[in-house]
Amino acid sequence: MKKLSDIPQNILDVPVNLIKQLTPKIGKKTSSKVGLPPGSIIHVGEKKIEKVSITLTEYDENKVETCEINSVEEIDPYTDTPQVTWVNVCGLHDTELIKQIGEKFNIHPLVLEDILNTETRPKIEITDNYIFISMKMLSNNNPENQILTEQVSFILGNSFVFSFLEKSDSIFNPIKDRITNNYGRVRKQASDYLFYALMDVVVDQYYLVLEQIEQNIELLDDEVTTNSDRSQIEKIYTLKNKLLLTRRSLWPLRDIFTRLTREETKLINKKIVPYLRDLLDHTMHITETIEFQREITISLMETHLSMMSFKMNEVMKVLTIIATIFIPLTFIVGIYGMNFPNMPEMKWPWAYFALWGVMIALTLLMLYFFKKKNWF
Amino acid sequence: MKKLSDIPQNILDVPVNLIKQLTPKIGKKTSSKVGLPPGSIIHVGEKKIEKVSITLTEYDENKVETCEINSVEEIDPYTDTPQVTWVNVCGLHDTELIKQIGEKFNIHPLVLEDILNTETRPKIEITDNYIFISMKMLSNNNPENQILTEQVSFILGNSFVFSFLEKSDSIFNPIKDRITNNYGRVRKQASDYLFYALMDVVVDQYYLVLEQIEQNIELLDDEVTTNSDRSQIEKIYTLKNKLLLTRRSLWPLRDIFTRLTREETKLINKKIVPYLRDLLDHTMHITETIEFQREITISLMETHLSMMSFKMNEVMKVLTIIATIFIPLTFIVGIYGMNFPNMPEMKWPWAYFALWGVMIALTLLMLYFFKKKNWF
Amino acid sequence: MKKLSDIPQNILDVPVNLIKQLTPKIGKKTSSKVGLPPGSIIHVGEKKIEKVSITLTEYDENKVETCEINSVEEIDPYTDTPQVTWVNVCGLHDTELIKQIGEKFNIHPLVLEDILNTETRPKIEITDNYIFISMKMLSNNNPENQILTEQVSFILGNSFVFSFLEKSDSIFNPIKDRITNNYGRVRKQASDYLFYALMDVVVDQYYLVLEQIEQNIELLDDEVTTNSDRSQIEKIYTLKNKLLLTRRSLWPLRDIFTRLTREETKLINKKIVPYLRDLLDHTMHITETIEFQREITISLMETHLSMMSFKMNEVMKVLTIIATIFIPLTFIVGIYGMNFPNMPEMKWPWAYFALWGVMIALTLLMLYFFKKKNWF
Amino acid sequence: MKKLSDIPQNILDVPVNLIKQLTPKIGKKTSSKVGLPPGSIIHVGEKKIEKVSITLTEYDENKVETCEINSVEEIDPYTDTPQVTWVNVCGLHDTELIKQIGEKFNIHPLVLEDILNTETRPKIEITDNYIFISMKMLSNNNPENQILTEQVSFILGNSFVFSFLEKSDSIFNPIKDRITNNYGRVRKQASDYLFYALMDVVVDQYYLVLEQIEQNIELLDDEVTTNSDRSQIEKIYTLKNKLLLTRRSLWPLRDIFTRLTREETKLINKKIVPYLRDLLDHTMHITETIEFQREITISLMETHLSMMSFKMNEVMKVLTIIATIFIPLTFIVGIYGMNFPNMPEMKWPWAYFALWGVMIALTLLMLYFFKKKNWF
Amino acid sequence: MKKLSDIPQNILDVPVNLIKQLTPKIGKKTSSKVGLPPGSIIHVGEKKIEKVSITLTEYDENKVETCEINSVEEIDPYTDTPQVTWVNVCGLHDTELIKQIGEKFNIHPLVLEDILNTETRPKIEITDNYIFISMKMLSNNNPENQILTEQVSFILGNSFVFSFLEKSDSIFNPIKDRITNNYGRVRKQASDYLFYALMDVVVDQYYLVLEQIEQNIELLDDEVTTNSDRSQIEKIYTLKNKLLLTRRSLWPLRDIFTRLTREETKLINKKIVPYLRDLLDHTMHITETIEFQREITISLMETHLSMMSFKMNEVMKVLTIIATIFIPLTFIVGIYGMNFPNMPEMKWPWAYFALWGVMIALTLLMLYFFKKKNWF
Repeated sequence: MKKLSDIPQNILDVPVNLIKQLTPKIGKKTSSKVGLPPGSIIHVGEKKIEKVSITLTEYDENKVETCEINSVEEIDPYTDTPQVTWVNVCGLHDTELIKQIGEKFNIHPLVLEDILNTETRPKIEITDNYIFISMKMLSNNNPENQILTEQVSFILGNSFVFSFLEKSDSIFNPIKDRITNNYGRVRKQASDYLFYALMDVVVDQYYLVLEQIEQNIELLDDEVTTNSDRSQIEKIYTLKNKLLLTRRSLWPLRDIFTRLTREETKLINKKIVPYLRDLLDHTMHITETIEFQREITISLMETHLSMMSFKMNEVMKVLTIIATIFIPLTFIVGIYGMNFPNMPEMKWPWAYFALWGVMIALTLLMLYFFKKKNWF
Repeated sequence: MKKLSDIPQNILDVPVNLIKQLTPKIGKKTSSKVGLPPGSIIHVGEKKIEKVSITLTEYDENKVETCEINSVEEIDPYTDTPQVTWVNVCGLHDTELIKQIGEKFNIHPLVLEDILNTETRPKIEITDNYIFISMKMLSNNNPENQILTEQVSFILGNSFVFSFLEKSDSIFNPIKDRITNNYGRVRKQASDYLFYALMDVVVDQYYLVLEQIEQNIELLDDEVTTNSDRSQIEKIYTLKNKLLLTRRSLWPLRDIFTRLTREETKLINKKIVPYLRDLLDHTMHITETIEFQREITISLMETHLSMMSFKMNEVMKVLTIIATIFIPLTFIVGIYGMNFPNMPEMKWPWAYFALWGVMIALTLLMLYFFKKKNWF
Repeated sequence: MKKLSDIPQNILDVPVNLIKQLTPKIGKKTSSKVGLPPGSIIHVGEKKIEKVSITLTEYDENKVETCEINSVEEIDPYTDTPQVTWVNVCGLHDTELIKQIGEKFNIHPLVLEDILNTETRPKIEITDNYIFISMKMLSNNNPENQILTEQVSFILGNSFVFSFLEKSDSIFNPIKDRITNNYGRVRKQASDYLFYALMDVVVDQYYLVLEQIEQNIELLDDEVTTNSDRSQIEKIYTLKNKLLLTRRSLWPLRDIFTRLTREETKLINKKIVPYLRDLLDHTMHITETIEFQREITISLMETHLSMMSFKMNEVMKVLTIIATIFIPLTFIVGIYGMNFPNMPEMKWPWAYFALWGVMIALTLLMLYFFKKKNWF
Repeated sequence: MKKLSDIPQNILDVPVNLIKQLTPKIGKKTSSKVGLPPGSIIHVGEKKIEKVSITLTEYDENKVETCEINSVEEIDPYTDTPQVTWVNVCGLHDTELIKQIGEKFNIHPLVLEDILNTETRPKIEITDNYIFISMKMLSNNNPENQILTEQVSFILGNSFVFSFLEKSDSIFNPIKDRITNNYGRVRKQASDYLFYALMDVVVDQYYLVLEQIEQNIELLDDEVTTNSDRSQIEKIYTLKNKLLLTRRSLWPLRDIFTRLTREETKLINKKIVPYLRDLLDHTMHITETIEFQREITISLMETHLSMMSFKMNEVMKVLTIIATIFIPLTFIVGIYGMNFPNMPEMKWPWAYFALWGVMIALTLLMLYFFKKKNWF
Repeated sequence: MKKLSDIPQNILDVPVNLIKQLTPKIGKKTSSKVGLPPGSIIHVGEKKIEKVSITLTEYDENKVETCEINSVEEIDPYTDTPQVTWVNVCGLHDTELIKQIGEKFNIHPLVLEDILNTETRPKIEITDNYIFISMKMLSNNNPENQILTEQVSFILGNSFVFSFLEKSDSIFNPIKDRITNNYGRVRKQASDYLFYALMDVVVDQYYLVLEQIEQNIELLDDEVTTNSDRSQIEKIYTLKNKLLLTRRSLWPLRDIFTRLTREETKLINKKIVPYLRDLLDHTMHITETIEFQREITISLMETHLSMMSFKMNEVMKVLTIIATIFIPLTFIVGIYGMNFPNMPEMKWPWAYFALWGVMIALTLLMLYFFKKKNWF
C-alpha cells in the first residue's frame, strides 16, 4: 500500500487550524455593517485585486464584439440592441460604479448591497425586469490546498447578463472562448442560456474541490488502516471542516435552482428549463457526494480511534505479560536474598538449581495462560 | 501559533456553569403565573431598569419631532396624523401604562401579556389593525462575555410603531440618528419601513454574538491542537451551550419572518416585502452559521478527546518501556543477590562482567522490539 | 460553588431505576385488552381514588351554581339551558356512569373507551356535536420527586364542557375560584373559553415539571464540573429519562392544538382562536425547552465522561511517574546487592556516594523529562 | 433490588446472535425470485404448516354459518349473497388455490404475488373492487422468547373479506367467538367492520411484543446499575435489534392506515372511519413507544459503558495506590541490601529503626496525598 | 458457533480500502469535463468492453425477431411499425453512434450526455415523445466480492425501448428468454411493460447485493460476540461503506419511480401503473433494509468496541492482581535482605517461618479483597 510519505506532501499538507480561514465569513466586516441603514452600497470583504476591470461582450449568431470598459456610460450603445450583451465586472471595491450600473438598469438597492457584501448567503431575487442570483464559488488551485471562497453574482435582464466577480476573471475564459469561436450552442441562444452557462461553470468548480477531498480521503484511508498516529485526527478534522464549508456554500443553491426551474418568468425560455434542471441535478449530486464523503470521514474517524485504542491494548498486553512473569520471580529471588541465619533451603546443596526449575516452570505456566487468553 | 495566554483573558473567561445564566428562561417567575387567568397583565421577568422611559418620535419626509412622554394621554395629539409615530417604551414593569396603551390602541389582552412576559417564545400575531412581533435580543457587551437575553416587542399599526424594550434603549440610537439626520431611506418611507428597520437592528445583534463565539472557537482550536488540558472540555461545553441558547432564541424567527413575507396585509406595502425577505435571509444565514459552528464545536470536542486519549497512550508507552526494560533486569540482579552457598556462576571470575553484557544485550533487544512496534 | 451536600437531599434524590415508574404505560393492563372488541367500555389503569366524585357547575355572567352529583339523571335539568354547564368527573373506575353519560350526550363508544383507557396516546376527535381531547397531565409534587402521569379528557359540547380526571381534583380549583368569584374573563365567555382554560391549566403543569428538571440540571452541572463520581451517571440518566417521558406526553399536543386552531367548527368562536393559538405557542415553547434541556443533558454526560477519563489519566500519570523514577533506581541498587566476589566498584571507597550522585542525577533528569512532557 | 438470577431465566434468555433469526427477511428465497417475470404466483418463505386450511364464515345480524372448505368451488354458493362472507386461508404453499381465488374474484396478479411472497414490505392497494392490505404480524409466545414474523394479508370486497395467514390460525379466534356468540358490534356491521376488526387484532399483537421488551429493559436496568458485566452488552444489543425489527415491520403501517382513513371508497362506510382512525392512533402510539424504548436502550448502553469504565478506573486506582506506596519503599530497602563496604548508615546502631520511621512517614504522606486526590 | 476460519475465505475477504473502488464516482473523468459546453457528447467513465454491440428485438404477441445491428441505419425498417422494438446498446464508448441515435429519434442533447456520462446521478426526464431514466446497477458476482457499479439508461418511446449498458449484456437475458419463449406477460403487452420489466431486473440486483451484505453481517455477528480482534473494525467499516454506496445509488430511485407513477403521460398505459407502483414498493423495501442493516452495523461496531474494552479490562485486572499481591511481598523480603548489623528480627530463630506466615496471610487477605470486588 502507498504510504503518505510516498506522495507529494502538498496534497495532504492542509494547515491544521483551518478554522481561521473558514470562519471570516461572519467576521469583523459584517459586524462593522451592524447599524448601517439597509441597502447601503458598501463593499464588505477583502479587496482581492487592485483594479476593477469590466469586460463587455456582445454577440448573436453572426457577430461577436468584445471590449474593455472604463465607465458605465460606455455600456450605453450596447443596451437596447437585440444582441446578447454580457458585462463581466471583476473586482467589487469600486462601489460608485456598481451604484451607477444599479441606477441605469433599475436594480433594487438591496440587490446592489448583496452584490457588494461578499459575506451573505447565496440568494435569488426574481423581479419582472431581472433575475438576480448570488453564489459562492470555491477554488482550491493554490499551493496550500486551501479552499478559497469567492462570491459571484449574476443578473439576467431581457437581453443582457451581468456577472460580478471578486477576483477570478479567468474562470469564465472557457465561456469567452466558446462565444468567440462559436463553439457549442451559446451563440445560437439568448441571454438566458449564457446565464445558465455561467452558473454551470461555478457549479462545476465544486466537483474539483470534492475530487481533491476525495484524494485526501483515499490517502488517509490507507494511512489509518496501516498506521494510526496522532496527526491523523487533525487531518480528518480538517477534511470534515472542508466538507462542512463546501456544504454550507452549496446548500442554498438547491432552493435557488428549484425556484428558478419552477418560476414562470418571461426572462427564461422554456427551452432553457431542461438545462436549469440539469444544473439542479448537479447540485443534488454534489450534495449527496458531500454527505457520502462526510459519512466516510466519520467512518475514518471511528476506525482511527479504534486503531489507537487497539494499539493501546497492545502496549498494555506487553506490559502485563512482562510484569506478570517477572514480578513473582523477583519476589522469589528476593526471598533467598534475605539474611536470616535459619533458612533450611539454604543448606540444601541442590536448592539453587531447584529454584531455577521452579521459576522456569512458573514462567511456562504463565505463558500457557496468556496463550489461552489469546494475548499473543 | 498564538497561545491562549497571549490573548486578553476576558475573551475566553466565560463562567463555567453557564447554565445558571441560561436557564432562568423557564424559572420561578413563569411558574408563579401558573393558575392565573390567561391575558393577565403581569410583568414576568427581572426589573432591569429603575424608571420606565417613553420616547415618542413623529416624522415624515419634511419634519421630525421627538419628545419624552410620561402618560398615555400625551400620545393623543400624535395619533391619527398622517406622519409616522414611533413610541419607544423602555422598561416593562409599569403594567398600568401598558394596559392603557392596550386599551387606547385596541390591542388584544394576550398580546399585552406577551409584551410583559419576558419569558415567552418569539411570536407573531397578525390582525386587521396591527401586527405584533416579539423577539429575543441577544447582547454580549458586558465584562464577563455573558450572553444576555432581552425581550423586544413591536407593534405596527396604520401609521404608528410601538417598540417595547426591557432595558437597552441605546440599541435603537442608530435608527434615531437616521431619522433625525434624514440619513438613508427611513424618512421617505412609511411606518412599515420603520418596523422593518427596528427588527433589522435586533437581528444584526446576533451577528455580534456569533462573531465573539467564532473568536472563542478559533482560540480553542489553536489550544486544543497544541495542548489539550482539562479546562478545555468546560470551555467547549460553554460554547456549545451558548450556541444552543442563540439557536433557541433565533429559531422561531424563521417562521415569523416567513409568515410576515407571505402574509397579505394592508399594513405592509409591497415595496417593503424585499426588505422583509432580506431579513428572513439574514435569519437563515445566522441559523446556518450556528449549525456550522455547532458542527465545528463537535469536531473540537472530538479532537480534544482524541488528544487526551493520545496523551494517555503516550504516558502508557513510557511506563511500559521503562517497566519492560527494568523489570527483567531487576529480576536478574535479584538472582545474584541470593545467598545460596552453591551457585556455580559466583565462582567464575568474569561472571559480573558477563552479566553486564547479558543485561545490555537484553536492553538493546527490547529497544529494537519497541522501535519495530513504533512505540517511539 | 454550592455542593450537592448543601442542598436538601430530596430534590436530587430521584430513584435510580426510574424505568419501572415510567414504563407501565404499556403494561399488563393494556395487553389484557388485546382481543376485546373495539369500543369496549373498560377502565384501563390504576384505580387511583376510592370514590368517583362528580361536580357540576353552571354559570353565566350573572349567576353561578355548583353542586355535587351522584347519578347521571341529576344532570338533566342543566342540559339545554343557555348557561355554560361544566361537569367535572373525578375517578374513572365507575364505567357504568361513563356509559350513561355517553348515551345521554351521544358520545361515540370509541371516545368513551379512550376516556377510560388511561394508557392511550393524547388524541383529538372533532365531530359535529362535540370536540373530544385527551391529554396527559404531569405532576411532580410528591415527596420522591417522581413524575406522575395522569390522563385528563375534555368534551366540549354546545353549551357544556365535560372534564374527566383520574384523581387530582384540586388541579382545577383556580378555575373554580375564577368562576365563583367572577375573576378574569371566564364568566363573560361561553363554554369554548372554559374548554380552553381547563386545557391551559394542564399545559401549565408542564412548566412546573421542567422547572424542577432545570433545577436538577443546575445542581448536576455544579457537581459534574467540580467532582465527578459514579452516581452522576445514574442521575443524568434519570434526568434524560424524565425528559423523554415529558416529551412523549407532550409531543402529540402540537398536532392536536394545531388542528384545533385550524378547524372550522361552530363549537369554537373565532374570538377564542387567539387563545388556542397561545396554547399552541406554549406547547411549542415547552417542546423547545425540552429539546434544549436534552442537549444540555447530553453535554453534561459528555463532560462527566470526559472528567472521569481525565481523572483516570491523572491516576495513570502518578503511577507512571513513580514507577518510571523508582524502577531503574531499584535495578541499580539491586546490582550492588549481588554477591559476586569480583565487582571492581565495590572496592572504590567513594562508590556508595558516587552511586547516590548517579541516582539523584537520574531522578532529576526524569523529572525534567516529565516536566517537559507537561505531566505535572 | 431484584437480581437477574432471581427471575425465571427464560425471560432474559434471548439468543445472542439474533441476527440470524432477524435477517432471513431478504434471504435466499427472495433472491431466487430475481429474474422471474413479475406477477409470478410463487410462494416465497418457509412452509410453516403442513396443510392449507380454509374456513368460511357467513353471517349477518340474524344468522351465522361456518364451514371448512376444500376447493374454491365450494365458495360459490356464498358469493353474491347480502351476508358478510369471511374466508380465512391458513397456509400459503398451495399456490394453485390462491391462483383460483384470484381468478374467481378478479384479483390483480401482483396482489396474488404479494400475498404469497412473505418477504415483502407491508402494502396497500386500493382498486374499485377491493382493498388489499398486507401486514407483518409479530408474535413472541414461544419458549425462546424470539420475535417471530408472519405475513398476514387481507382483501376487502363488497360483502366479503379474505384473510391469508402463514400459520397462526388461533390468532383470529376472538373474532370468531364474537361472531358466533354475537358479542360486540361485529354482527351488526358490514364487511368493512370485520376488515377493521381483523387488522386491529394484528396491531394489538405489537403491544404484547413491546410489553415483553419493556420487561427485559426493566430487568436490564436493575442489572446494569448494580452490577455491570460483559454479557449485558449482548443483551442490550439484542433488545436494540428486536426494537429495530419491530419498528421496521410497523413503520409502513402508518402510511397504509393514513391512506385508508383518507381514501374515498365506496367499500368503506363513513361510520367505520373513526375505527380506522383509532387503528392509526394505535400505530402512532406503538411507534412512539418503540422510539421511547430505543432511547432508553441507548441510555442503558451508555450507562453500561460508563459503569464498565468506572470499574476499570477502580482497578487502576488500586494498582496505583499499591504500586506508588511500595515501589519507593522497595527501592529504599534495596539500598541497604547493597554490599558496599563503606556505607556510613550501616554503622549507626539505630539506623534500622530510623529507616522504619522514614518508611512509615513516607507511606502516611502518600496515603494523605491519595486521600486529598479523592482516590479512596 | 461457526468461526470465521471455517467459512470460505472469499466471502468475507473484502479488500480493506474499499474507498478506492467506491469513490472514482467523482473522479478525474468528471472533472476533465469541467469547462466543456453542456450537452457535449463525450463518454465519461471507463471503457469496460472492447466492442459496442447492439441487439434489436422486435416482437408482438404473434412474432419475434432478433438481430445484431452494426449501424443506426439498420434500425430504420423497424421504426414506425406497430410492434414493440427493443434496442439494447452494450458499451458506451462509440459516441458517434449514440449521437446518430439521438438525431434519428430526436433525443435532447442533455439526455445523450447523461447516457454517456456514467458518473451522474440517477435521473428521469419526461417529454412528450419519450421518457428517459438512468439508474445505477450494482453487481457483486466477481471473485473479490466487490460491489461494481454500472450505469444503465432506458428510453421509452411510442413503440420502442432503448436500453444502454456499460458492459453486462447478460443481465437482460431472462427478459430476452421470456420474449423469445413467450413466457409471462411480456409478449402480450406494449413497450411500457418492457420498459418496466427491464427496470425491475435492475432493481432486483440490489436484493442480491443486500443478501451478500447480510451474510457478511451474520458472520461478523458470530465473530464479534465470540472473539473480537483488530481486523473486525475494518470489516465492519467496509460493510458500512458498502451500505453507503448502495444507499447512494438507490436513493434517487424513490423520487424517480414516484414521479413515474404519478405522471400523466400517454406513453404509459394505466394498466402498467400497478407494476410501477410495485417497483416503487421494492425500492422502499430495499431502502428500509439498508437502513436496518446500517443500524445493525452500528450495533456491531458498538459491541465490537465494548468487547475490545472488556478485554482491555481483563488484561488490566490480571496485571493489577499480580502486581498488588507481589509488590508488597517483594518489599517485605527486601527488608530482610538489608545488611544492617542491628536487626532484632534476624536473631529470632523462627523469624523466617513467621515471615512466610505473614506473607501467606497477606496474600489470602488480598485474594479475598479481589474476590469481594468481583475481579475474578
